[in-house]
Amino acid sequence: MQIKPTTLKEIAGLIHAKFIGDENHEITGFNEIHRAETGDVVFVDHPKYYEKALNSKASTILINKKVECPVHKALIVHNDPFTAFNALTKHFSPRAHSGMNISDTAKIGLNTVIMPGCFIGNYVSIGNNCVLYPNVVIYDHCVIGDNVMIHANTTIGSDAFYLKKRAAKFEPLYTCGYVIIEDDVIIGSNCSIDKGVTAVTKIGKGSALDNQVHIGHDVIIGEKCLFAAQVGIAGACNIGNNVTVWGQVGISSGITIEDDASILAQSGVAENIKTGKTYFGTPASDAKEKMREVFAAKQLPGLIHKLYKE
Amino acid sequence: MQIKPTTLKEIAGLIHAKFIGDENHEITGFNEIHRAETGDVVFVDHPKYYEKALNSKASTILINKKVECPVHKALIVHNDPFTAFNALTKHFSPRAHSGMNISDTAKIGLNTVIMPGCFIGNYVSIGNNCVLYPNVVIYDHCVIGDNVMIHANTTIGSDAFYLKKRAAKFEPLYTCGYVIIEDDVIIGSNCSIDKGVTAVTKIGKGSALDNQVHIGHDVIIGEKCLFAAQVGIAGACNIGNNVTVWGQVGISSGITIEDDASILAQSGVAENIKTGKTYFGTPASDAKEKMREVFAAKQLPGLIHKLYKE
Amino acid sequence: MQIKPTTLKEIAGLIHAKFIGDENHEITGFNEIHRAETGDVVFVDHPKYYEKALNSKASTILINKKVECPVHKALIVHNDPFTAFNALTKHFSPRAHSGMNISDTAKIGLNTVIMPGCFIGNYVSIGNNCVLYPNVVIYDHCVIGDNVMIHANTTIGSDAFYLKKRAAKFEPLYTCGYVIIEDDVIIGSNCSIDKGVTAVTKIGKGSALDNQVHIGHDVIIGEKCLFAAQVGIAGACNIGNNVTVWGQVGISSGITIEDDASILAQSGVAENIKTGKTYFGTPASDAKEKMREVFAAKQLPGLIHKLYKE
Repeated sequence: MQIKPTTLKEIAGLIHAKFIGDENHEITGFNEIHRAETGDVVFVDHPKYYEKALNSKASTILINKKVECPVHKALIVHNDPFTAFNALTKHFSPRAHSGMNISDTAKIGLNTVIMPGCFIGNYVSIGNNCVLYPNVVIYDHCVIGDNVMIHANTTIGSDAFYLKKRAAKFEPLYTCGYVIIEDDVIIGSNCSIDKGVTAVTKIGKGSALDNQVHIGHDVIIGEKCLFAAQVGIAGACNIGNNVTVWGQVGISSGITIEDDASILAQSGVAENIKTGKTYFGTPASDAKEKMREVFAAKQLPGLIHKLYKE
Repeated sequence: MQIKPTTLKEIAGLIHAKFIGDENHEITGFNEIHRAETGDVVFVDHPKYYEKALNSKASTILINKKVECPVHKALIVHNDPFTAFNALTKHFSPRAHSGMNISDTAKIGLNTVIMPGCFIGNYVSIGNNCVLYPNVVIYDHCVIGDNVMIHANTTIGSDAFYLKKRAAKFEPLYTCGYVIIEDDVIIGSNCSIDKGVTAVTKIGKGSALDNQVHIGHDVIIGEKCLFAAQVGIAGACNIGNNVTVWGQVGISSGITIEDDASILAQSGVAENIKTGKTYFGTPASDAKEKMREVFAAKQLPGLIHKLYKE
Repeated sequence: MQIKPTTLKEIAGLIHAKFIGDENHEITGFNEIHRAETGDVVFVDHPKYYEKALNSKASTILINKKVECPVHKALIVHNDPFTAFNALTKHFSPRAHSGMNISDTAKIGLNTVIMPGCFIGNYVSIGNNCVLYPNVVIYDHCVIGDNVMIHANTTIGSDAFYLKKRAAKFEPLYTCGYVIIEDDVIIGSNCSIDKGVTAVTKIGKGSALDNQVHIGHDVIIGEKCLFAAQVGIAGACNIGNNVTVWGQVGISSGITIEDDASILAQSGVAENIKTGKTYFGTPASDAKEKMREVFAAKQLPGLIHKLYKE
């Protein structure tokens, strides 16, 4: 998320934390480590990720140990960076629940139909010529383009499932990102599309999702992709253009699927897929090789019988 | 969809297209190629399907090439039959969104309870003694029988996921079909049942669907079938009577499952299943054979070790 | 379900049935056989389960055959125990649909936000500091603790999918149980959590469910469990504490998963899992062994080629 530019001193003060760096060092936003840009604060609380955070594009690192501060960057030291980061993002992006079905801060374009029972949150923007069928829910700050069709009971902008296990419960990283649905997208009924944690979840222009598709936080989907029913994409995946994903496929978090790839039904994808490749199976691999395995497996009982008989 | 009978000349005129045949040739409806009946117009835009369209029961073929006209039939020639067909079905079945939660053209039977937040579209018919739990959405023209129970947040009648890939987006075939839910059907929460594209999606008498089931366009399900949670049935499948489909099963488009068949949990069905058979696996095959494969696969690591050691 | 204590004579009279036992024998509730406690009536209509019913903790057995009555217990004999049991539970727990979005018998705690379009049924109790996002549906009698977050279009308390196949339809066992969501639970969007048939479905303190999760009737989930998106848990499963279930996993009915177990994505679990074990595959087994099978299967086509060439 972006904020009105402020200073290191100001931000550190909000969480009563010490800082290392110029007190006027500029801070312009907050981001999750995979999405950080210049001006951002990122947090890190595990030594395994210290290097990644310190070397990210982020200008300020909120960290639970005094380490050497990289050149041109700043550190904020706090014993619980996760909680401190949540406090900061909540401070700059508080949630207000107005009780209205369509917030008076939402913008709705021309010729757009919002059917009964829909909820349109604060600062939502919806383009022209869209149809939102009954009971569609759009959380605060989401952006919908032109000519978008969203079927009934679909949820856009629910919180990221990005959790830290504490002694008594799972504590969520406070979700302050949003969703962009670009022009000419079709979304089926009963779908769920989560917000980015601090950045964006995006469905690219001209893509189409069937019913009951789940898209996790921070997933970026390109243009003209097709997702059949009941597909589930875990958080932070990057999916190119013209990708076809058949029914009930699952994709693990952080996976990259390149342009023109296809994934056959019910596959479980746990590795990146290159341009134009077709994958199948759980765990998914090249579809032709996988089908050879499937065919071979049919011969296996006979083969075992034969080998042990001999 | 059925229309008030009209003529070839009238229909061709609406899309400014040339026709081959008697100008008074009768047209009584529009249908997708798999569902066409006498009097219907079907469209075809790929040479691969020309024969199928010309030999279907349809009386009029909307086609993108001048071909020989079958006896007693007529052709309408248009360079983009998909778009022309959409224009025609939209003309005869325009969508009007009234903004009402329960349309004043909907019929609701005796002793039927519609709980808060439900949406009942235009020309919907609901029988007697039904219960629609909160936030159920029934799109225009759907027909619900007697004694039907539909749980919360379920969507009945969303558009067919029947799309043509264009240069910039997926363009949907305009959905002008409907859904029939026969008497004594139980439908769980958060289900999605799509309309037929031009014809019907049907759930037969006495069948029961658990939560989060997806039923694609033009699927015909027989009587007393049981679908466990999270099952997904792709478009245009034909499912007999007394079929049992366990949790998270997926069935590919166009598949036929005959009476009394069973499909074990998480199977992915890509071939037709005969009467009374039990299937398992992805791709699914006879369950007993498949379980032998599963058992054999457990011995495979040891077998390979043994073979390569020798 | 619990009732105001009454007598054997009273209960048998309601269904015009004969009884064996003291007419003042105390009845304090109705329960499904797996959940029966002292004072309860259970029903049984198949000889296969007679012993189980007669030896259960239930004090009264509603049965379709005269058998020897166990000491300190009572029998009610009826030719259709399923129907008779339904008549009794409906009598003591009738459904009243008030047409209100938030029932006036519901209790809502301090600082709890109920967003537009939610439905809160009769006798529902919701604790403090909860957020229910738009269009969440909570059926009658469900109990939600403190600090619970439930995302949009989720359904809590839909009927158990517990059905008896009759000549013409599936007849449901009348659901008169409820759901308990304990403190600090997070539930994603478009989830479905069914009631217990006669008892409780429970999500333990501090657990977290991602989007589109299905939880069947009478499932008991412990504390600090994590369920990723699109998981489906069939009825009457018992899941311990700190269990992790990854995306699109399915668990068959009645399965026990002990503390600290993990189930990898897309697995189909059909056997109990011991403390701390990690499972994978369909049917799921020890993950390390399963991965050896997966690796071996990749070698199988080459192995078969080699063997048949020789």
